[in-house]
Amino acid sequence: MDEFMQAAYEEAMQGYREGGIPIGSVLVLDGKIIGRGHNRRVQRGSPVLHAEMDALENAGRLAPEEYRRATIYTTLSPCDMCSGAILLYKIPRVVIGENQTFLGAEELLKSRGVELVVLNDPQLIQMMKDFIAEKPDLWYEDIGHCIEC
Amino acid sequence: MDEFMQAAYEEAMQGYREGGIPIGSVLVLDGKIIGRGHNRRVQRGSPVLHAEMDALENAGRLAPEEYRRATIYTTLSPCDMCSGAILLYKIPRVVIGENQTFLGAEELLKSRGVELVVLNDPQLIQMMKDFIAEKPDLWYEDIGHCIEC
Repeated sequence: MDEFMQAAYEEAMQGYREGGIPIGSVLVLDGKIIGRGHNRRVQRGSPVLHAEMDALENAGRLAPEEYRRATIYTTLSPCDMCSGAILLYKIPRVVIGENQTFLGAEELLKSRGVELVVLNDPQLIQMMKDFIAEKPDLWYEDIGHCIEC
Repeated sequence: MDEFMQAAYEEAMQGYREGGIPIGSVLVLDGKIIGRGHNRRVQRGSPVLHAEMDALENAGRLAPEEYRRATIYTTLSPCDMCSGAILLYKIPRVVIGENQTFLGAEELLKSRGVELVVLNDPQLIQMMKDFIAEKPDLWYEDIGHCIEC
């Protein structure tokens, strides 16, 4: 893992220590982290603050041209919502820690010209496997997956 | 406008009175409003709390099966991010006040089976036309549109 994915991983672990879902993200502009965040479903009762959204939120209001020079790092493949945020702000590059435990809207991102780098880091895969085994209901809630539907 | 779009309009106007972007939304479940919100870019310095996101956030954590019975009302056609949130949670129906001043990811939503009802209400169109004329830079920032790119 490079320093940015390492920072996203640390965010994920911080979220886990808080009793939350271990997914982390950082937004990088011109070689510097300008926003970092982790999933806040448990901590804030939030359905919208996935890790990527939290990183974007914590970066604050940016000019449209700044997003176009940014890269977003996330420990897990971005869901429909987070991918939509990436498309809204036209972030051109996404580095994904792993897409083995969950595959988000990668095809949509690629079809819109976003560059994806998928690491499939074994440590990140194991982190999510362990979490999903530990708290499956929380995980399914986070991705809108209805077991009984 | 029915009572739910009226409530979304009132949210939009509240946002405008706060100095913000006049877009409002309500989430309706089983005939009742369970979340309401408006764009908070100015008020909270938030790039992620578009009106629909704010309504989802204010509804709090719901069970996956609840979203699947819900309808979201929004005064303006939902952007890529808000459409992504609708897809994540599999909200089956979206009532859109207007799509004349901004056309969001309606084709994507339709391709994924979401039912769209577009009202194109003249009052809502005029509200956004007036706002865009008044504060074009703020509007372009909100939709990630780069004038100089």
